[in-house]
Amino acid sequence: MSDVVCSTFTIGWFGEKKSKRELKVNCFYTEGTANMFLRPIDDIKIHVDLDEMRVSQYLDRKITTIPKAEGTEYRLSHMKPPLGPRMNNRATVTAEGPGFTLVGNTVKWANWEFHLAFDARVGTIISLASIYDLEQNKYRRVLYRGYVSELFVPYQDPREGWYQMSFFDNGEYGFGRTAVPLEPLTDCPANAVFIDGYLANEDGLPVKTSNALCIFERHAGDIMWRHTESEMPGDIREVRPEVSLVVRMVATVGNYDYILDWELKPSGSIKSWVGLTGVLEVRPVAYTNADQINEETHGTLVAENTIGVYHDHFMNYYLDLDIDGDANSFVKTNLVTKKNTNGKTPRKSYWTVEKETVKTELDARILLGTKPMELSLENPNKKTKVGHPVGYRLLPGFFTVPLLALDDYQQIRGAFSNYNVWVTPYNKSEKWAAGDHVDRSHGDDTLLTWTNENRPIENKDIVLWYTMGIHHVPCQEDFPLMPTVSGGFELRPTNFFEYNPVLKVIPPEQVPWPNCTAKCVGFGVPLNLNGPAKLS
Amino acid sequence: MSDVVCSTFTIGWFGEKKSKRELKVNCFYTEGTANMFLRPIDDIKIHVDLDEMRVSQYLDRKITTIPKAEGTEYRLSHMKPPLGPRMNNRATVTAEGPGFTLVGNTVKWANWEFHLAFDARVGTIISLASIYDLEQNKYRRVLYRGYVSELFVPYQDPREGWYQMSFFDNGEYGFGRTAVPLEPLTDCPANAVFIDGYLANEDGLPVKTSNALCIFERHAGDIMWRHTESEMPGDIREVRPEVSLVVRMVATVGNYDYILDWELKPSGSIKSWVGLTGVLEVRPVAYTNADQINEETHGTLVAENTIGVYHDHFMNYYLDLDIDGDANSFVKTNLVTKKNTNGKTPRKSYWTVEKETVKTELDARILLGTKPMELSLENPNKKTKVGHPVGYRLLPGFFTVPLLALDDYQQIRGAFSNYNVWVTPYNKSEKWAAGDHVDRSHGDDTLLTWTNENRPIENKDIVLWYTMGIHHVPCQEDFPLMPTVSGGFELRPTNFFEYNPVLKVIPPEQVPWPNCTAKCVGFGVPLNLNGPAKLS
Repeated sequence: MSDVVCSTFTIGWFGEKKSKRELKVNCFYTEGTANMFLRPIDDIKIHVDLDEMRVSQYLDRKITTIPKAEGTEYRLSHMKPPLGPRMNNRATVTAEGPGFTLVGNTVKWANWEFHLAFDARVGTIISLASIYDLEQNKYRRVLYRGYVSELFVPYQDPREGWYQMSFFDNGEYGFGRTAVPLEPLTDCPANAVFIDGYLANEDGLPVKTSNALCIFERHAGDIMWRHTESEMPGDIREVRPEVSLVVRMVATVGNYDYILDWELKPSGSIKSWVGLTGVLEVRPVAYTNADQINEETHGTLVAENTIGVYHDHFMNYYLDLDIDGDANSFVKTNLVTKKNTNGKTPRKSYWTVEKETVKTELDARILLGTKPMELSLENPNKKTKVGHPVGYRLLPGFFTVPLLALDDYQQIRGAFSNYNVWVTPYNKSEKWAAGDHVDRSHGDDTLLTWTNENRPIENKDIVLWYTMGIHHVPCQEDFPLMPTVSGGFELRPTNFFEYNPVLKVIPPEQVPWPNCTAKCVGFGVPLNLNGPAKLS
Repeated sequence: MSDVVCSTFTIGWFGEKKSKRELKVNCFYTEGTANMFLRPIDDIKIHVDLDEMRVSQYLDRKITTIPKAEGTEYRLSHMKPPLGPRMNNRATVTAEGPGFTLVGNTVKWANWEFHLAFDARVGTIISLASIYDLEQNKYRRVLYRGYVSELFVPYQDPREGWYQMSFFDNGEYGFGRTAVPLEPLTDCPANAVFIDGYLANEDGLPVKTSNALCIFERHAGDIMWRHTESEMPGDIREVRPEVSLVVRMVATVGNYDYILDWELKPSGSIKSWVGLTGVLEVRPVAYTNADQINEETHGTLVAENTIGVYHDHFMNYYLDLDIDGDANSFVKTNLVTKKNTNGKTPRKSYWTVEKETVKTELDARILLGTKPMELSLENPNKKTKVGHPVGYRLLPGFFTVPLLALDDYQQIRGAFSNYNVWVTPYNKSEKWAAGDHVDRSHGDDTLLTWTNENRPIENKDIVLWYTMGIHHVPCQEDFPLMPTVSGGFELRPTNFFEYNPVLKVIPPEQVPWPNCTAKCVGFGVPLNLNGPAKLS
């Protein structure tokens, strides 16, 4: 029994008039491994009533398989040879310090200024993000507040013991509450600065999460912009290496690890990335080979006796953009094919854009990928010198449609995944896309119900809600620990600036190697101090 | 006249029975700027007959606007204050050298081995890419050969002087021929190794492009995989920082710069990224403000007198995957919603997968985004221990549908953009998606015509052709030089390995700073040698 670990799982609502404050307890067998999630003890059903604080149901149905410990370990110290591949090391020196300043919770970096908060429910909150405009000689507001408002993870095994497995990781568990201390040099690179996070615990007392956030400059070897002019005489070539700033947090919600990055670029782009790693939720089976299976298993046989259950991750971002002021409009730029009626040329067709300012909430519900369009938030009250309303555009990342029936109980609660894009007028009580009390929700307080009011959204303080996600069909490579899958979206200035805001960027001083005047020690071999290597 | 530069542009085919070997000559005014492409001299039409080597048409229609030079310059040396933002510098030391070996054109890095070639038409060719499998103690083939087979850029102004503007940058200009020498420390980071490229010129003589390719390890601060185990006692936390290998090339085809990256990951993923930067193609207009416009301009007023013309970039990748051998099948994994007919649980629905091996070419033509599905190449003759055919999956990047009429002349030639995914049986004469002789093509030798044969593709040596692209609606930020927009796709092992291939990775030795024993000079301030910074 000392090798058994039990953990709590939310149950949610399945049509009961009044759902109880109940949790499910699932147990795992840890003998021989640190990877308990791959050794579930299936078919024991325990429910705990949280009002009465007692076991309300207990069912021990039958003796079933527990997948073996072999192959589930992931600690380097427990690996058996052969090991590999071996990774080359690298040291990074930001000679002038981390590249940004942090005063209180306000970060200043390059042309950006923003405030950073750590929240029990949503984790990282970026707010008051403003970018300095050289032409206007002032900071201009872009993002009033942005965070992951909810994460909905429905599993796709409808049978007893698994049908309730649909998690709302923010509202039920809390991204801040499940944030893990970041490990210097591995979770964040050498040039990272760490910030502790403080939360109130169940008793209202402050608790600290060390290294809850890290901030670092990313010098990934990308190119900010470049051009070589081959048609004109002279050696005309200008290249600007990309440097961006990343704010990172990791929430480990039980088995899954979510790496949450906000990335700000000097060009004005705000990117948000999520990396999915950690351990699969698995269901034990007697099968050891796919050839033995002739029933629906609701997942992939990822190892002997182990089904990695199909599931989705739908992540909703709350993006209260304030593009150069709080009164903004949501604009669809439709790309439309036209016949060429100009008889003077043999061209038969072309496409052009038709802009459409969205008036009310229902018209702002969008399933991406169905029609070619660009989506922007514009400030109709501010124009560039050549007359465009200033704006920011959403470049969607991995988005996907929900596959559950829209009237299924989890989907009613997770209705924010019905569409990829929603826009609402700002309302301080509408913070989280699946509502305030998610575990007990019957779906009557969600982004769907709010927007059913079809409120006006033109030239108002509006909020963009973006749902991205993936359907996860597990594969053997996800066992026993998943290599990161990542995706994200970008908010990109579009006629916000008069011209390329990094045209006049002062590039980093190019230092090929640290100019050490003595032997550099601590490495296996002497450093090459003579600039970039050239192999023959 | 000494400030006028003229350049050649392809014309293509517009329904003529026999199209002539003719080029169009467009001229630009370079007075006061290095950015000639933003000062086109419009409305002069010059055609040159290449067989007769004489001007076959000359039309100087009217006196029109030339956009002014002011604001078009992009050289740092020519910038007027205020400048900014200022970027922090960083030095990078890979103490044990570049991390890979290069023998001839064969690269060995981590668990990968591949051959690298530089081709006049397609630029970088990755071939014979194989990954070492610890379990099988051998290299296993993944990619027999991969490259960008064509890039189709149709502009969307159907009027005289512009209707022909539809470029096939590989077949008409050549990615290798337009490859530019990469600049150390800006185009590629300090730890990059450069390779020269050799091509035959028009006379058959060898010409060298210095630094045509660079190869570097990317340590971007990402996480390969991680897990913190909070439910079990003890401080169980394992994190592996991501390291990947990038092969880069830049093709500057006139105004546009294409950054072409192949990225290999120890997890078995092959990613390909393209970054779009450089200068817009613009058309002069008399307008100085959008309010003055009440006609179709076929583009965005990006600056006074300057229309950035709407256009697309469709990029086709030739991917001759050989998943653990050359006989492969193309498999659609459809995600399908089911009703829950199991009356024992209140769950109403779930999704599951239905796999479908594609038999012939027509069924392999796919427009992405229309149905939820995963796409894989599998080797039906090799199975994992638990019984799955070994495979690799395509994770699409930015894909898009064509908007031109399918019977428009350019679209007939660029028909590879009609679908995002195509699969053909390997045929050594089918190398480039728009055919061999692209400029003179009437569309009778393209991926569309080949696949019309509907040849069998099951359990054969097959080629995956993937078309990604974007519709580009220019904005003011693209003027006078576009900040990079990038996108790409991933080929990811899916039941190719028995388990996570980087489970036993040996992480890089974590060296926070180079351990300099003397004062490090050459920087503005002394180095912080005390590990990761912590700001208060």
